[in-house]
Amino acid sequence: NSYFKIAVLPGDGIGPEVVSESIKVLDAVAEVFQCQFKYSYGLMGAEAIFKTGDPLPDETLKICKDSDAVLFGAIGDPVFDNNPEAKVRPEQGLLKLRKELGLYANIRPLKTFPSLIDKSPLKREIIEGTDIQIFRELVSGIYFGEKFTDPDGKYAYDVCKYSTEEIIPIAHMAFQEAEKRKKKLTLVDKANVLDTSRLWRKTCQKIASQYPDVQLEYLFVDNAAMQLILNPKQFDVILTENMFGDIISDEASVIGGSIGLLPSASIGEENALFEPIHGSYPQAKGKGIANPVASILSTAMMLDYLELPEAADKLRRAVEHAIENGYVTVDLNTEQHYSTSEVGSFIADYI
Amino acid sequence: NSYFKIAVLPGDGIGPEVVSESIKVLDAVAEVFQCQFKYSYGLMGAEAIFKTGDPLPDETLKICKDSDAVLFGAIGDPVFDNNPEAKVRPEQGLLKLRKELGLYANIRPLKTFPSLIDKSPLKREIIEGTDIQIFRELVSGIYFGEKFTDPDGKYAYDVCKYSTEEIIPIAHMAFQEAEKRKKKLTLVDKANVLDTSRLWRKTCQKIASQYPDVQLEYLFVDNAAMQLILNPKQFDVILTENMFGDIISDEASVIGGSIGLLPSASIGEENALFEPIHGSYPQAKGKGIANPVASILSTAMMLDYLELPEAADKLRRAVEHAIENGYVTVDLNTEQHYSTSEVGSFIADYI
Ligand SMILES: CC(C)[C@H](C(=O)O)[C@@H](O)C(=O)O
Ligand SMILES: CC(C)[C@H](C(=O)O)[C@@H](O)C(=O)O
Repeated sequence: NSYFKIAVLPGDGIGPEVVSESIKVLDAVAEVFQCQFKYSYGLMGAEAIFKTGDPLPDETLKICKDSDAVLFGAIGDPVFDNNPEAKVRPEQGLLKLRKELGLYANIRPLKTFPSLIDKSPLKREIIEGTDIQIFRELVSGIYFGEKFTDPDGKYAYDVCKYSTEEIIPIAHMAFQEAEKRKKKLTLVDKANVLDTSRLWRKTCQKIASQYPDVQLEYLFVDNAAMQLILNPKQFDVILTENMFGDIISDEASVIGGSIGLLPSASIGEENALFEPIHGSYPQAKGKGIANPVASILSTAMMLDYLELPEAADKLRRAVEHAIENGYVTVDLNTEQHYSTSEVGSFIADYI
Repeated sequence: NSYFKIAVLPGDGIGPEVVSESIKVLDAVAEVFQCQFKYSYGLMGAEAIFKTGDPLPDETLKICKDSDAVLFGAIGDPVFDNNPEAKVRPEQGLLKLRKELGLYANIRPLKTFPSLIDKSPLKREIIEGTDIQIFRELVSGIYFGEKFTDPDGKYAYDVCKYSTEEIIPIAHMAFQEAEKRKKKLTLVDKANVLDTSRLWRKTCQKIASQYPDVQLEYLFVDNAAMQLILNPKQFDVILTENMFGDIISDEASVIGGSIGLLPSASIGEENALFEPIHGSYPQAKGKGIANPVASILSTAMMLDYLELPEAADKLRRAVEHAIENGYVTVDLNTEQHYSTSEVGSFIADYI
């Protein structure tokens, strides 16, 4: 199969700018690797609220369900962040999309780029050689459990609920990834306090026997938050629930020195979505200074998912080439830097 | 008042070793500052389970309720950590104690010691001058909400619940502390997803008008986990709910380079408990290598609470003196180091 339907959701803030560089790069891939991408654009997030009142219009959902993969930019707008009373919020669109597409596994690879190591707030000897893959459960837990605020505003609650059925698929995915790598899987939880965490532990313990080569370790989330900074190299594959994954994976993103480089994939049984982990970064919107690399590397993850591993590798090499040769945006070099679109073009040309 | 009843709970692992250095130091304080401390010892944690079957025997709770302040060591034992099925666990004792004593505010000051800055995994320019005070709500939220595991082990849940009554007292405490400091308060939450977080935001927003000098800022917990590492100096006082506080404050503890230095206070209307933030560190038990400084600095927080500010200051100066002059345990200097008890004696002698 060499024909792919790609749903493109540029979203808010710098989303449109970085996504259009990904499209530029995909067009180059199509030419070189003899395949075809058909793009269908959809509204999403604050943009969608402004235009339709709905952060995830039905039309957008339809386009996504119909696609082979979704390329997503970013979501969020200060208009909503500064108003805790807002009833309709951009984030609801993203959460609904994850749920509707069944994107149960959010995957974030973390590696350091040799030429950028000194940009990290952490010391070189702590981070050099870090290579972590984080698996975060994405469609359950406290994000999707029952929520309630009493009408008088006196109390509120959020329920964190997990079933073994929700844990098993992502646990297998993480074990399988660990098998292909350094064979170490760390489950991050709070099993000394939470029933749901104990369910995660028991479920993973059972599954472990099917992966005798993989060493399964447990780490309390508070300790994990320390260990990620004290010694990130100790980790290979990390598996965790939705809320802990949100915190831990953003924390881990500081290791490499720029969040503008980090891609992610959200995978389900029938759909998949690819997005940079940076947010909408509204201050930079329209200035041509956003780093397109995270979006472009997310596109590489998409190519892997579409079973075009050679194209994915080529794209990653192109990115490395750009970085090693100083074709970077201002976040990576304040003296000598290029615009979002120049960096995108350089990468596309290399392909 | 110069007579104080101190409940002493040495607990597990290295707890007894570090607490006995605090007692040594307190004895010196009593002599110099003309006051009296009466110590009552209680069993707690794994030790208490082994001896009585109960991680918090009634006798211990009684001693604590009866005291002016509680000095606590550490809790936890690998026997329980490695057994997710254990019905009785050391941590239950600590959680029950917090609840029974109404210790709603866990306070953790974070400062860097000039002579130890290079021990941090973070770069000097990132951390030098960091001075943060974290207020973590300690007796509600997902720790104490309803928990359930279905008998077939197919699903489980934990409820995170907050009432405005639970938020208001600690919010005032944090605002008041910010007023005395750099007048900046950061509320860490996940208000784009959780109802409880939106309740925290609204409640703090209301209270803010009583503290016109304090600038109240909001930060999503995932972003906070990044910002603490990227630029810890941006923070003054941080306020957050129980689970986020557990993660964020342990994460922040890596900044200074040694968790063996960090104290904490847990404060309620009528009781207060002081403990080092490091855990029971079972591998070091009985070896005389544990760093007593965190426990001793917790004792300084206790002296402040008992309204003995001069004694507290003297104690802090003694600790600084010990560190600046190299009277430290092996975690801070692998070449030239002293035992737990030698460091404690040095600090006591200085007083
Ligand atoms: C925007 C927000 C709802 C989202 C989340 O918390 O999942 C984001 O932080 C992320 O990690 O993708
Ligand atoms: C031991 C554990 C229950 C406890 C907590 O999570 O509160 C500890 O991590 C702490 O922070 O004091």
